[in-house]
Amino acid sequence: MAEHLSQSELDYPFKLLEYFNGFRVSKMIFSACELGVFDLLLKSQDALSAQHVAQELGTSMDGMERLLDALVGIEILEVETAQGTALYSSTDVANLYLAKGSAKSLHDMIIYRSQTVYPLWNNLVDAIREGRNQYEKTFGLPSGHFFQAIYRSEEEMLKFMGIMSCHWVLDGHDVVTAFDLSRFQKVVDLGGCTGALANEMARAYPASSVTVFDLPQVVEAAQKHFKQEDSGVTFQSGDFFSDEIPGADLYVLARVIHDWPEEKCLALLKKVYETCKPGEFPRNQGHPHTLAGR
Amino acid sequence: MAEHLSQSELDYPFKLLEYFNGFRVSKMIFSACELGVFDLLLKSQDALSAQHVAQELGTSMDGMERLLDALVGIEILEVETAQGTALYSSTDVANLYLAKGSAKSLHDMIIYRSQTVYPLWNNLVDAIREGRNQYEKTFGLPSGHFFQAIYRSEEEMLKFMGIMSCHWVLDGHDVVTAFDLSRFQKVVDLGGCTGALANEMARAYPASSVTVFDLPQVVEAAQKHFKQEDSGVTFQSGDFFSDEIPGADLYVLARVIHDWPEEKCLALLKKVYETCKPGEFPRNQGHPHTLAGR
Repeated sequence: MAEHLSQSELDYPFKLLEYFNGFRVSKMIFSACELGVFDLLLKSQDALSAQHVAQELGTSMDGMERLLDALVGIEILEVETAQGTALYSSTDVANLYLAKGSAKSLHDMIIYRSQTVYPLWNNLVDAIREGRNQYEKTFGLPSGHFFQAIYRSEEEMLKFMGIMSCHWVLDGHDVVTAFDLSRFQKVVDLGGCTGALANEMARAYPASSVTVFDLPQVVEAAQKHFKQEDSGVTFQSGDFFSDEIPGADLYVLARVIHDWPEEKCLALLKKVYETCKPGEFPRNQGHPHTLAGR
Repeated sequence: MAEHLSQSELDYPFKLLEYFNGFRVSKMIFSACELGVFDLLLKSQDALSAQHVAQELGTSMDGMERLLDALVGIEILEVETAQGTALYSSTDVANLYLAKGSAKSLHDMIIYRSQTVYPLWNNLVDAIREGRNQYEKTFGLPSGHFFQAIYRSEEEMLKFMGIMSCHWVLDGHDVVTAFDLSRFQKVVDLGGCTGALANEMARAYPASSVTVFDLPQVVEAAQKHFKQEDSGVTFQSGDFFSDEIPGADLYVLARVIHDWPEEKCLALLKKVYETCKPGEFPRNQGHPHTLAGR
């Protein structure tokens, strides 16, 4: 038996059963977000009964009571009993990360996980068999046309941009400060979307110039809906596949090198490599300077 | 902030992020079961490369390599490197619970969770709104006709019986011995299916007579495919909704009081109550003796 698994796991597979129920825990939290449970509890001064929550949110009483109790079970909500009635209230963690509108809200990302990623993962067996994503089987969307679908309307595009922005709420600062990047004067974030990571970059390295390079409609929406005053980040419009990319000392390719066919990703990396100036930074001897992440 | 959540969870929500990824962990294990990864690794004497596993199971190399690495990450598989090639092997826990055919195999239950429960939970928001199950929306199955669908063919029925049997592999013995039930001479398991729980009952209380009462086709299949020699359990055919139920000191209603409309469940409970002999066991003063569980 593996050293890291205790004998008791063989007698009774506690951890394995937790893994089996992981999808239920995810969906409980996601569904409470979608139904607005955390927003209602944040807004309310008092702890609320299941009946009150069900009425406010237009759900069945039985279903809501079960959901609230389950969320208490995983310590996302709290419960107290007053005169025989269970009264539910939120936790600081739920208020900060699960409700809408807080500076660290992960709400948009959660909706995306619940409505897009969870159903995609229902076809994981086929993804492994075929070695490709399952947008087509899951949503009837040709797999090469992922971004066409996203950019089909301004509403869809803004939704996607909100999600992309969400991803850097937790890790953006840690990512840009994991290495000292202060020697790079000119930074270009290719496909930098709302500028969420670029803002972190500009904040951490105030002496550097940081530019987001993205499609014209994305740049327009970013400046209209996601503008951060005084961040110092500039935006430049273009298509990194067909247009020339701006010169830079450091290219950021974060959450970009995927969801495209392999040959498009390679063409983009080649373009970045050729635009980089070899030999300029002796310690790296001509390798392209990219900060890439999925 | 809740006392049970440390301050660091507010700084960085480790536990929350684990909850968000729970569905991925579940589906990874489920998919590996469906693809036969654990069966192949159990059969093999040596650790196998991702390429070997992919070839044997007819999957993409890229997809299989990612799956195997992810399973190593959650300590379900192990990896060693020989001459630059990663070689994967199973753990005792995976061999015992995840591979087919072992005495404690949960394989059938896992397939059911992956192909039936996981997609049902994709509609959890609607289940909470409407307060009812989502068989119809998920599978186009009218919600009152759950069992009609299961009993539509012998193959489907055997699959379902295998799952029901699976449920008692881990907890059956603990359930029947949680209380001392030795004073009950005649035990009837209503809807006892394969007799998996009845067998645990008979083993724990050899002086009691234990009878499984289920539909004729279920009893027939149970005796043909799931017979346990010398268990002492007897089978009786009938429909617990329309037929008279056999007399007993103790009725077992395990995983039965759900997936039916509320009024059918109540009618069944009323029938059991009326068949029980009030006052016979002074300590319980006429309450029906049922061992009910979901």
